[in-house]
Amino acid sequence: MNWDELGLKIAKEIEKEVMPYFGKKEGAKIIGYSPSGDTTELIDRMSEDIVLKHLKPLNINIVSEEIGTINNNSEWTAIIDPIDGSFNFTTGFPCFGFCFAIFKNNKPYYGLTYEFLTKNIYEAYVGKGAFLNGEKIKVKKYIEKEAVISYYSNKNLNLIGKVRRARIMGAFGVEMAYVAKGALDAVFDIRPYVRTTDFASSYIICKEAGAIITDEKGHEFKFNLNTTDRYNMIVANDKKLLNIILEEIKINR
Amino acid sequence: MNWDELGLKIAKEIEKEVMPYFGKKEGAKIIGYSPSGDTTELIDRMSEDIVLKHLKPLNINIVSEEIGTINNNSEWTAIIDPIDGSFNFTTGFPCFGFCFAIFKNNKPYYGLTYEFLTKNIYEAYVGKGAFLNGEKIKVKKYIEKEAVISYYSNKNLNLIGKVRRARIMGAFGVEMAYVAKGALDAVFDIRPYVRTTDFASSYIICKEAGAIITDEKGHEFKFNLNTTDRYNMIVANDKKLLNIILEEIKINR
Repeated sequence: MNWDELGLKIAKEIEKEVMPYFGKKEGAKIIGYSPSGDTTELIDRMSEDIVLKHLKPLNINIVSEEIGTINNNSEWTAIIDPIDGSFNFTTGFPCFGFCFAIFKNNKPYYGLTYEFLTKNIYEAYVGKGAFLNGEKIKVKKYIEKEAVISYYSNKNLNLIGKVRRARIMGAFGVEMAYVAKGALDAVFDIRPYVRTTDFASSYIICKEAGAIITDEKGHEFKFNLNTTDRYNMIVANDKKLLNIILEEIKINR
Repeated sequence: MNWDELGLKIAKEIEKEVMPYFGKKEGAKIIGYSPSGDTTELIDRMSEDIVLKHLKPLNINIVSEEIGTINNNSEWTAIIDPIDGSFNFTTGFPCFGFCFAIFKNNKPYYGLTYEFLTKNIYEAYVGKGAFLNGEKIKVKKYIEKEAVISYYSNKNLNLIGKVRRARIMGAFGVEMAYVAKGALDAVFDIRPYVRTTDFASSYIICKEAGAIITDEKGHEFKFNLNTTDRYNMIVANDKKLLNIILEEIKINR
């Protein structure tokens, strides 16, 4: 199976069907509930139907935000968020994407994160580097006090003077891809809120691009292949920046 | 003069010439300095050249970020930021736009803010309402603790629990347009950093969409038609939210 071709095919089909609803209230019409208790909106259902149409015939395991887990006892598992940043999508903020990860025997294998608006394709096969539209990408070289970060916290952190800029774009999987391409120095969530479907594809891309990924205590980040667990997660381009973030989290614990 | 047709023509020409540089380092090559001391990057120069090509033959006054002020003693003044959010543009964040305002005898007349990626056209003639792609827009109805805001401050404000979400997109003029269309409840800058070229077009759009615009003390916002003054500016959809922001600014003064 060419997972990259399949992922992009699904992404493009979702794009075609769903983009007309960008910034429109109709897309946010609530039509059900997901296994984790979130409301399912029209665009979630539309996009997940496309995902299922392509993946069900393969008889692989599927972990997807709205539908939950389909276990077919396959060695392959697809982990998908059809629209990462769906609040942004329906509200009209220009940051959202399609997250598609393939795991083999529960180990990372391939990740694709696709931004509909920019048509940027971020992808990585484990061990083969990370790519943006076919060109190799790496995390940015960290420069002290010049970092650009995004973060999500229920505590009032104070990073003024320690980093240069904040860009809080509201689509964690896409923002991780920004770390991979060197637009962001770091992104973290310590509410904890993010789920495996949000970060699985960009986790693979970030690892291949040289990012450090830890929990809120700086330990190696570990996760399960389900739609319900929520995580504290820090993705950074440099140990020094990671330590600044960890220190600020510690002070505010 | 059909200012709307002219504005959109310039926007589309900039889009065509400049969009190939989105997210590319070449676009950020420094080729000079602006009157306010900022560096002028290749894309700034390219886009301002297009602006001047269209506006110089009209013999109107021009106030534009890189070139400064051209005074032709006309009753008409065009105030322009060819690329609002140029850091975002060159770095690869999907939020940036073209800001084009027309003042008649130093009074607001017409505003156009154009988002290149989404192709969203926000515009307003004074007294005739604000429009997004030809459809009338209004600020969002404020719901307590549900607000989505963007803000820029050198002090560590604590708005957790008082608003629901932060979206810090890094393009003030475009974010003001988000307030006008009801995606953001408020955006403010109290560094002070924003200049007239950043907000002139969206100021007109926001006013027509029903936004409240004040300085950092809650007084009516006043500004000059130049490229150098920097302002504290609050744009909000509701007096209650404005007061929450003003209170937090006061505590941290």
